[in-house]
Amino acid sequence: MHQMKMSRVFTLIEPGPVVLVTTRDGNKNNVMTISWTMVLDFTPAFAITTGAWNYSFAALQRTRECVIAIPTVDLLDRVVGIGTCSGADTDKFAKFKLTAVPAKLVKAPLIKECLANIECKVVDLIEKHNIVVLEAVAAYEDPARDEGRTVHAVGDGTFIVDGRKLDRRKMMASKLSAGI
Amino acid sequence: MHQMKMSRVFTLIEPGPVVLVTTRDGNKNNVMTISWTMVLDFTPAFAITTGAWNYSFAALQRTRECVIAIPTVDLLDRVVGIGTCSGADTDKFAKFKLTAVPAKLVKAPLIKECLANIECKVVDLIEKHNIVVLEAVAAYEDPARDEGRTVHAVGDGTFIVDGRKLDRRKMMASKLSAGI
Repeated sequence: MHQMKMSRVFTLIEPGPVVLVTTRDGNKNNVMTISWTMVLDFTPAFAITTGAWNYSFAALQRTRECVIAIPTVDLLDRVVGIGTCSGADTDKFAKFKLTAVPAKLVKAPLIKECLANIECKVVDLIEKHNIVVLEAVAAYEDPARDEGRTVHAVGDGTFIVDGRKLDRRKMMASKLSAGI
Repeated sequence: MHQMKMSRVFTLIEPGPVVLVTTRDGNKNNVMTISWTMVLDFTPAFAITTGAWNYSFAALQRTRECVIAIPTVDLLDRVVGIGTCSGADTDKFAKFKLTAVPAKLVKAPLIKECLANIECKVVDLIEKHNIVVLEAVAAYEDPARDEGRTVHAVGDGTFIVDGRKLDRRKMMASKLSAGI
């Protein structure tokens, strides 16, 4: 996995892919599937919607750290499986054959099988709206990976795979963030 | 445009499409392009990231209403155009040939050309993080439309068009919200 420039990290979340969020509580790794995410800033900062209904939330609250990993379409069945069982009674890294790789600045693990991984610190918990505000502190991508298509959850049990990419860089030149 | 069941409205935002947000300040309609959005609840409630850097923000603050319209790939050049000029000096409905249709519960207009439209009330402004919390109060979709593919902004001037749809409804049955 190659280190990413921090100025490009928001481009992993802005298109709205389903993501995996890892936590480490004591010496126990866990992972959840999340599709309610949002970019907050180019710095980069992100928001995710989660709360006590997710077992990972307690670890997120306690450790104030996580990793957002970006899976691709070849991992879809594992992503759905991760989202339909709980870390309360399942070692999901073992069950779904995920390789935990140590991160540099947080204790939550990176997932080797994913396209990209973002180390995050919890900046704020807005409990009224179940919003967790995250600041990315490091990120990595795997440019050698054959499959680069991410998936988008519709929320009804169907998923949309990335299709064609259209280039509007010239039209948008005046609006693009520096370092892109 | 057909009225949508409120229990299905979150499925418009969860996949992460670029959206248009309309406002009406006095008798002046405006529209902005936003790709920083997130589902907060099935009720449905949404968050968007915006602030004073968007001209529409003042209208959103003052009127506490907006419409989130979902454009499709055939509208991409208009969507990008809307995102690269300002309502401060441009009548964007005229410039981009958009048809404003009166909404029922908010003064901000629906956009006839879009795949779907969601009438929203502002529930909270979290200024510290530039998060606007919205509650949807009505929504419509246009099932007669030929083009149904939405687009996802990468943030670097490129856009990903919806590709194949994969069905995992059986695997996810235990997790799906009621009314889906």
